[in-house]
Amino acid sequence: MIIVMQSHASTKQVSAVVARVESLGYRVHLSQGDETTIIGVIGDDRPIDPTQFELLDGVEKTVPILKPFKLASRTMHPPDTLVPLNGVQVGGPKVVIIAGPCAVESREQLLEVAQAVKEAGATALRGGAFKPRSSPYAFQGLGEAGLELLAEARSVTGLPVVTEAMTPEQVPLVGKYADVIQIGARNMQNFNLLTAAGEYGKTVLLKRGMMSTMEEWLMSAEYILAQGNGRVILCERGIRTFEKYTRNTTDINAIPVLKQMTHLPVILDPSHSTGKWEYVLPVARAGVAAGADGLIVEVHSHPEDAVSDGMQSLRPERFAQMVIEVRRVAEAVGRQC
Amino acid sequence: MIIVMQSHASTKQVSAVVARVESLGYRVHLSQGDETTIIGVIGDDRPIDPTQFELLDGVEKTVPILKPFKLASRTMHPPDTLVPLNGVQVGGPKVVIIAGPCAVESREQLLEVAQAVKEAGATALRGGAFKPRSSPYAFQGLGEAGLELLAEARSVTGLPVVTEAMTPEQVPLVGKYADVIQIGARNMQNFNLLTAAGEYGKTVLLKRGMMSTMEEWLMSAEYILAQGNGRVILCERGIRTFEKYTRNTTDINAIPVLKQMTHLPVILDPSHSTGKWEYVLPVARAGVAAGADGLIVEVHSHPEDAVSDGMQSLRPERFAQMVIEVRRVAEAVGRQC
Amino acid sequence: MIIVMQSHASTKQVSAVVARVESLGYRVHLSQGDETTIIGVIGDDRPIDPTQFELLDGVEKTVPILKPFKLASRTMHPPDTLVPLNGVQVGGPKVVIIAGPCAVESREQLLEVAQAVKEAGATALRGGAFKPRSSPYAFQGLGEAGLELLAEARSVTGLPVVTEAMTPEQVPLVGKYADVIQIGARNMQNFNLLTAAGEYGKTVLLKRGMMSTMEEWLMSAEYILAQGNGRVILCERGIRTFEKYTRNTTDINAIPVLKQMTHLPVILDPSHSTGKWEYVLPVARAGVAAGADGLIVEVHSHPEDAVSDGMQSLRPERFAQMVIEVRRVAEAVGRQC
Amino acid sequence: MIIVMQSHASTKQVSAVVARVESLGYRVHLSQGDETTIIGVIGDDRPIDPTQFELLDGVEKTVPILKPFKLASRTMHPPDTLVPLNGVQVGGPKVVIIAGPCAVESREQLLEVAQAVKEAGATALRGGAFKPRSSPYAFQGLGEAGLELLAEARSVTGLPVVTEAMTPEQVPLVGKYADVIQIGARNMQNFNLLTAAGEYGKTVLLKRGMMSTMEEWLMSAEYILAQGNGRVILCERGIRTFEKYTRNTTDINAIPVLKQMTHLPVILDPSHSTGKWEYVLPVARAGVAAGADGLIVEVHSHPEDAVSDGMQSLRPERFAQMVIEVRRVAEAVGRQC
Repeated sequence: MIIVMQSHASTKQVSAVVARVESLGYRVHLSQGDETTIIGVIGDDRPIDPTQFELLDGVEKTVPILKPFKLASRTMHPPDTLVPLNGVQVGGPKVVIIAGPCAVESREQLLEVAQAVKEAGATALRGGAFKPRSSPYAFQGLGEAGLELLAEARSVTGLPVVTEAMTPEQVPLVGKYADVIQIGARNMQNFNLLTAAGEYGKTVLLKRGMMSTMEEWLMSAEYILAQGNGRVILCERGIRTFEKYTRNTTDINAIPVLKQMTHLPVILDPSHSTGKWEYVLPVARAGVAAGADGLIVEVHSHPEDAVSDGMQSLRPERFAQMVIEVRRVAEAVGRQC
Repeated sequence: MIIVMQSHASTKQVSAVVARVESLGYRVHLSQGDETTIIGVIGDDRPIDPTQFELLDGVEKTVPILKPFKLASRTMHPPDTLVPLNGVQVGGPKVVIIAGPCAVESREQLLEVAQAVKEAGATALRGGAFKPRSSPYAFQGLGEAGLELLAEARSVTGLPVVTEAMTPEQVPLVGKYADVIQIGARNMQNFNLLTAAGEYGKTVLLKRGMMSTMEEWLMSAEYILAQGNGRVILCERGIRTFEKYTRNTTDINAIPVLKQMTHLPVILDPSHSTGKWEYVLPVARAGVAAGADGLIVEVHSHPEDAVSDGMQSLRPERFAQMVIEVRRVAEAVGRQC
Repeated sequence: MIIVMQSHASTKQVSAVVARVESLGYRVHLSQGDETTIIGVIGDDRPIDPTQFELLDGVEKTVPILKPFKLASRTMHPPDTLVPLNGVQVGGPKVVIIAGPCAVESREQLLEVAQAVKEAGATALRGGAFKPRSSPYAFQGLGEAGLELLAEARSVTGLPVVTEAMTPEQVPLVGKYADVIQIGARNMQNFNLLTAAGEYGKTVLLKRGMMSTMEEWLMSAEYILAQGNGRVILCERGIRTFEKYTRNTTDINAIPVLKQMTHLPVILDPSHSTGKWEYVLPVARAGVAAGADGLIVEVHSHPEDAVSDGMQSLRPERFAQMVIEVRRVAEAVGRQC
Repeated sequence: MIIVMQSHASTKQVSAVVARVESLGYRVHLSQGDETTIIGVIGDDRPIDPTQFELLDGVEKTVPILKPFKLASRTMHPPDTLVPLNGVQVGGPKVVIIAGPCAVESREQLLEVAQAVKEAGATALRGGAFKPRSSPYAFQGLGEAGLELLAEARSVTGLPVVTEAMTPEQVPLVGKYADVIQIGARNMQNFNLLTAAGEYGKTVLLKRGMMSTMEEWLMSAEYILAQGNGRVILCERGIRTFEKYTRNTTDINAIPVLKQMTHLPVILDPSHSTGKWEYVLPVARAGVAAGADGLIVEVHSHPEDAVSDGMQSLRPERFAQMVIEVRRVAEAVGRQC
C-alpha cells in the first residue's frame, strides 16, 4: 500500500508513520515530492487494515496496491480453471447452457420443461426448491419435495441439476440432491453460506450481488476457494442501476473483465439481467459474443401460469431457437455450443 | 392493479384478459381511452403475480396500485410503534443513541468504550461478536466469547446490548445474550434469518441493504412482523451510489419518507453512511433534524488500533461532543435526547 | 393517466378531482376498488402536468399511461428509420463502423488514422475538433482548424465526417464541415443545442447521457425530430453505475429495448462504454450480437501519445482485427458488415 | 502520480517507464516491493494524461496523488470564500434562504410569491425565465419577458434575483437582469457556459449535476474560477440513484465533505433533492444541521396550478413555517438565519 501524507505534514509526522509501518514488520520506501510525501509499504500488506495509518496525524489517505484476493486471481493462477459439468468442461471451448424453470412448481411442470430443454440442447437443468422472495406472502418453494423432483428429472433426462441453497444448514440437504449448488445474488455476501458451500465440496455457481463490485464478487469466490473447493462458476445476472426500464442492467463489460482478472469460468443469466423474455435472446447472443463460458436461462412451458418470473421465462420453442442462434454466435467467435 | 393494453389491442384480446381476471375471483373495471384501454382489477390483488397478465396477448404492462406490504404500512396501522429500550420508547419523543465499537475485540477494549459511551449519555451499547467481512482473511469476530463480554459490559454499565446475528441458527445464541438482535445490511434479504429473528421474538434492528429500495426494506420488515414480532427498528445506513468519495451515500430523504410510509421507528447510522469519522457529527445532527428516532454510532478508544472500521469510529471525547450537539438539534426540532 | 386516491379519500374529494379533470376538457372513468378509488383520465393528457392532481386533497399518486414521446415512438411510426451514410443505410441490414481518433490533434495524426480505418473497412470517420473536457487545464480541441483537417481527411479518404458541436452557435460552423453532427453525452439534455441541431437539418448522432434513462434519451431525440429533422442516430456509450472497474457500464440491454421502443437506428460506442482498449473488441462483438446497427470506435496510431482517451483507443491493426471479428458476428446474426 | 508495474514486469520495462517520465521533465522515485514495483512521479503532474503510462508495456495502472483542481481547493486557499448577497455574506455565519417559483409564469404569480417569501424572511428571489424541460412539448419559460418581471419583483421587494442561463449567448442577457446567474444541473458540464459565466463576472450559483461526483463538480467550479471570477456558490440538489421513491437522493454527506474540500460556500436545494413538498421541510432542516450555508427552495401560491414542479413547491404559509424551523436548527448549530 501507499500512504499519502498531507501537503503540510511535518517530518515528525512522517517519521511516526514510518515507525508504525516498521513496527508491523514491513519495510518502507519514502518518496518526497514537491507537494507531498508518499510512503510505500513493502511486503504483503493484505492482512493490515489501512485505516490504522489513515488515522495517524498528517496522513491524507492510503492507496492499496495489491489486489485483495489471491486464490481467485489470474495473476496467482494463470491457467483457466475448468469445471466439469455433464461431460463438458465449463471454461473450455464449449459454451454450456443451463436451463429450466425459475421454481419447481410440480412434477408435471418440471418434467415437461426438463425434457424440452434437454431436447433443445441444454447441458444442465436449473430449478429452485428454496426460493428467496422479497414478499413473505409469495410462494417460497417446495423445499425438499422440490429437490426430490429435481432428482427425478435428472434420472429421466440425464441432465445434472443446479439448484439454490439459502442457508448454511441447507447446504448438505441441497448438496444431497444437486450437482451444482447455486448461491443467489442476495446471498453473495452471506459469508457463512459461502464457507459452508466451500466446505461441502460440490461445484458452486456464485451469482453476482445486484449491487456488488467485481472485486467484492471475487472476494466472495475467495471464501469458497479458501475452503479448498476450486470448482466455482461465476454468474453475471445484472446489476441495479438508475435505469428501471429493464429489471436489471446486464453488465456485459464484466465478462471480458473477469476473464482477465480471474481464472474461474464466467457465465451469464440473461433472464434476470433483463427481466423480460423479449430481451433474453439478443442478450444471450451478446453474452456469448463477449466471451461468456455459458448461459443460465429460465424456461417455462406456460409462463403466464408461472408462480414466479414468468415475465422473463422463455417458452420451450423460443428456447430452442435461442440455442440455435447462440450456437451460430459461439462459432463466429471460435467456440462451440 | 391496472392492466394497460397495447394501443392496437383487439376487443378479443381485451376480453381474454378480463376473463382471466374474473376467473381468479376479481372484478374488473374497463376504461376505454382514445389511444388505449385500461383494465382495473378490483380486490386485494397482492397475492397475484402481475406477470401472468403481462404475458397475455395485447397487454402492454401492469401497474400495481396497492403497496406490497401491509403490517409495516402506516395506512394499515396509523399510530407510531414504540419499541422499549432501556426505559425509553424508541419512536417516542426521546432520540436514542446506541454506541460502541464496530467489533468486540477484547474485554479491556469493550469495557473501556462501554463505560465511556454510558457516561456520555448513550441509551444502549453496540458491538459485533459475529462480523460479516468481505475478505475471508479478515478478523471474523470473537463469536460466543464476544457475546459473553457484551453481557459483562451490560452488567457493568446497565446498557442494553445490540449485536448482530448472521444466520438463522445463530439467532438463539445471539438472542440469549442480546437485548436487540441486529440484522446487517448484507443480510437484509436473508429471508430465513428474518423469519428466525421474527420467531425468536426479541427486538430486531433491521439495517437497510446498501442496494435496497425503501419498499424492499419494508417488505423485509414485513417478514419479521408476519411472525408476530412487532418490535422492529429500521436503521438507514447509507446506500451505494456512483459517488465514491464517501463510503456510502446517506439517504437522508429516507427518514421523512419512512416516517410517512410506516409506523416503525427509524434510526440513522452515520458511521456507515459516511465511512469517515469527520463527517459523522454533521450527519448525525442532520439525521435528527430530519426526524430520526435515534442514532447508532461506532466509538473506539483507539481507532488507529481497531481491527475494523477504525476510520469511521469516533473517539470517546468526540462522541461526547456529538451527544451535546445532537441534543441541541433534537431540542430545536421539539424532541429530547 | 390514472389518478389513485388515498384509501380514506372521501366522496367529496373524488368529486373535486373529477371536476378538475373535466374542466380541462378530458373525460374520466371512475373505478371503485375495495381499498381505493382510481380515476382514469381519457384523452391525450401528455400536455398536462400530473402534479396538479397529486396536490389535490385525497390523491395518493398519479400513474402515466401514455409514453411521453411521440415522434420517436415505434408505436406511432412502426417502420425502421434508415439514415443514409456513405452509401449505406444506417438501420438497414448492414452494420456500420465509424472510427477515428478521440480528438483531432494534427494533420499527420488525423490523416494516418483516417487512411488506416478506411483500409480496415470503416464507413465513416470520427474525430473531435471541439472537446468537452472536465478540466479547464486540459486540451480543448483545435476548433475550426480541426474541422478543416477533418474536411481534408474526407477528401483524401472519401469517408464522411462525424464530429461534435457543443453549443447552439457552433452548429452552423460544425455543420459546414461535418456530415454528421454529434451531440455528446454531457449535452444530451442541452435543449437549445438539440433544437439548433434539429433546425440545421443534417444527420445528428445523439449520445446517451451517462445517467439518463432511455425515456429521457428518446425525449431528447424528440426535440430534434420536432424540428422536422428525422435523421437521428442514437448512440449508447455506457452509463454511470456503482461499478468503477470500467469507466462506464455498457447498457447492452438498451440495444434490444430501443429497437423495440423506437424506429431510430441505434449504435454502440464500446470505447467509452468500457474505457479500456482490451475490452473494446469483445464488447463491440456483443453490441452487434445484441442487434446494434453500428459501432463508433476510437482509433489512434500511437495511443500512448494521444492527448485524450489513449487508454480506450485501438491501434489500427487491432481495429482491423475488430472489423474482421465483428463481421463474423454480424453474419451469424443475419446481417452484413 | 504513482505508476504500479505488473507483478511480472521486467527490469527493461521498468526502465522504459522511468525514461519516459524523465523525458517529460519529472523525477522518479523507484520502490521495489516483494510482488511489484511502483514508480513515483515527482513534480506537478496534473497536466499529464496518465494514460500514456498505462499503455506502456508492463504497467498495471496509475494512481493520481494530487487533486485535479487547484483554485477550488481548500488546501490551496484555506479561508472561507464569502459571497455577498443582499447585505449578507454567503459562507459566513448567517444561513441564507433563496426562494421563489420554479418558473416565472405571470406578473401576478411572481409578485405574489416574491412578496410572500420576502415577508417570511427570504434573502433572495429565485425564478426561471429560461427553463430546461425534458419534453419539447412542455412550457419552456417566458424568456426575456420573464427576466423583466424578475427585475420588477426585485424593485418591488428589494430581493436580489437568482435566475438561470442555459447557453453561453444567454449569459449577457440574463446577467443584465440577474444578481446571481444560475447554472442548472443539466448544464454542470456545459463547459462553454461555465466559461461564459466566469467571464461575465457576476456571482454564479453552480448546481451539481445529477450524475456528477463531487470532484467533477469542483472541476466545473474551477472553469469559472479560472476566468478570474471567484464568486461561486455550490448547490447540492440531489443525485440520481437506484432509489426512485423520491425524485432524487439528497447527498447530505456532500455538505460536510465540500466544506472540507473547498473554500466555496455550499447551499442545499431540498425541493429538487426530494421532489415532494412534504419532505422539503425536514430535509431543509437536515441541510442546515449538516452545515449548509443556505437553502434554495421552490415556493408557489397555488402549486396545483404551477406549470412545473408544483409537486415540490411549498405554499407561502408552509415556507414561512420552514423559515421558523430552519432558524431554530441554525441557532442550535451556532449560526443565524
